[in-house]
Amino acid sequence: MCRGAAVIDIRRHNANFCREHFLRLCRDQVSKAIRRFGMLQPGERVLVAVSGGKDSLALWDILVGLGYAADGFYLGLGIGDYSDESAGYAHRYAESRSLTLHTVDLPAAHGFDVPGGARAAKRAPCSACGLSKRHLFDEAARRGGYDALATGHNLDDEAAVLMGNTLRWQTEYLGRQLPVLEARDGFPRKVKPLVRLSERETAAYCILRGIDYVVEECPMAVGNKHLAYKAALNDIEVQSPGAKHDFYFGFLERASERFRAEVERDRGNLAPCERCGSPTDAGVCAFCRLTERATAEAERKGAIQLEVRKTPSEAVARATRERSKKERA
Amino acid sequence: MCRGAAVIDIRRHNANFCREHFLRLCRDQVSKAIRRFGMLQPGERVLVAVSGGKDSLALWDILVGLGYAADGFYLGLGIGDYSDESAGYAHRYAESRSLTLHTVDLPAAHGFDVPGGARAAKRAPCSACGLSKRHLFDEAARRGGYDALATGHNLDDEAAVLMGNTLRWQTEYLGRQLPVLEARDGFPRKVKPLVRLSERETAAYCILRGIDYVVEECPMAVGNKHLAYKAALNDIEVQSPGAKHDFYFGFLERASERFRAEVERDRGNLAPCERCGSPTDAGVCAFCRLTERATAEAERKGAIQLEVRKTPSEAVARATRERSKKERA
Repeated sequence: MCRGAAVIDIRRHNANFCREHFLRLCRDQVSKAIRRFGMLQPGERVLVAVSGGKDSLALWDILVGLGYAADGFYLGLGIGDYSDESAGYAHRYAESRSLTLHTVDLPAAHGFDVPGGARAAKRAPCSACGLSKRHLFDEAARRGGYDALATGHNLDDEAAVLMGNTLRWQTEYLGRQLPVLEARDGFPRKVKPLVRLSERETAAYCILRGIDYVVEECPMAVGNKHLAYKAALNDIEVQSPGAKHDFYFGFLERASERFRAEVERDRGNLAPCERCGSPTDAGVCAFCRLTERATAEAERKGAIQLEVRKTPSEAVARATRERSKKERA
Repeated sequence: MCRGAAVIDIRRHNANFCREHFLRLCRDQVSKAIRRFGMLQPGERVLVAVSGGKDSLALWDILVGLGYAADGFYLGLGIGDYSDESAGYAHRYAESRSLTLHTVDLPAAHGFDVPGGARAAKRAPCSACGLSKRHLFDEAARRGGYDALATGHNLDDEAAVLMGNTLRWQTEYLGRQLPVLEARDGFPRKVKPLVRLSERETAAYCILRGIDYVVEECPMAVGNKHLAYKAALNDIEVQSPGAKHDFYFGFLERASERFRAEVERDRGNLAPCERCGSPTDAGVCAFCRLTERATAEAERKGAIQLEVRKTPSEAVARATRERSKKERA
């Protein structure tokens, strides 16, 4: 029985923790996830996708503490002040710990920012952003020769994504929602070592470790469905502590593999993108197509605003929405 | 284009309805569910489980309107004034339409009520109630020689049950959550013809058809998880109209069968209950065991209150909770 002053209570563990035991709990939970899912081997080189927020900075700090050779990668998304501010937190953390932080600036390197890319591709901002991040994180890990790419997705994130995938029974997404995706065909191994920690815990970890992080949510994400699913799960967690954990880990234990076979079967054959060399099943990869549309849009600005035709993927999405509405009638 | 005055808007259909078109919509949705899932054949005799609430009275009214030979069955659960009041609504509807309503009173026929049964069996009230209803509904349908037993579960009910089953990934329950369970081994066919209607719609149907129903929720259900799941789904539906429909019907179309094989495989061999003759895989059926405990408890009242030992099923539930807590640590 520890006599230290409690700094946090965690209802799903039905326990209070002092500073030292809480920090140890966080490290132990990350260790446990890494071991359980075979995420990393001792001494491997890891690239951590760092946003400047609590999750990615806590992840980086814990991985370094556990002895992994972990460098950071910051991607500037061109979301106004929010991106500048986030970059500052990432850089200050790296400098204070003498860690290596690689950076890429989307507008400088590729000629468009997330708001512009979303407009040009007629995608939701979070969709254009996710596509850009996946592509550029993968590329950075591959070029740097890292063994794995680690992202700061926590239990709240994964449970909310799972809720979205389940509410729509998106069987392909369900089959791919795993804490580890093995390296294949030019994609690096991708791991989510924070899946056993909630966002309240990563925030507390940063505060107790003196890590400053950007507190604001991304302004582009306001009102998106992911946040609505988080709110719904928070309400359920209040009534049933542990509900999020059981939802996510119960899925991995008892349901995930029921959706996996068809994902393996339906996997397209990958070949290098004609423009950037990244693996793709579409000739030109989705990021290069986004870049093309976004930079063309940027050039057109100031000239006559042309009627932008619907993109094929948008037409499909619209048809799906219409069909869904009809089926309810 | 109808010129009638709109009485209700339904956001998931993105439309307003006048009285006549709304009533037709309700009947059409029930017809569609019956046809799509092969619930009933024309002219079949149906026993409707009637609680006195909006769903079961709307169901009975619609089935009669569609030409089915539908009788009602009311089960008095002994939940104080709530049961008396509910019975009144069921009887008044049946009388006003000259329909046949069978009734059984749990305390009079079996010597215990739901609150007492729950206490004696150390079950949640909704659990003791559900067990009693399933048993006595089945028995009434079997004894009356009905082709099917129809219950008033609506889209909100089924979506909330599905959310509970999914949050805990209770694979056995997921494999059995179907709008039709075929007759087998002495169990009647069970059908849920309201799965395409929301509870707001069944309430509006009753009001427009002049059907009085008990408005209060059952007092035993206050604070149960089912209501919390309904609230969570209501929040999601506000942001994404049609979300409940897509959740439930998407499950039936794309996920349900992934959970069904093991339910078929793990089915126990059924034999008549030693006491009541109902099909069971346990010698004495669960309802007869509940009755035994509840009546023994009732007899003991007034005498010395004995220490009631934990029942085996409770010990299992406790062990499961403990194991679950440990796995999160």
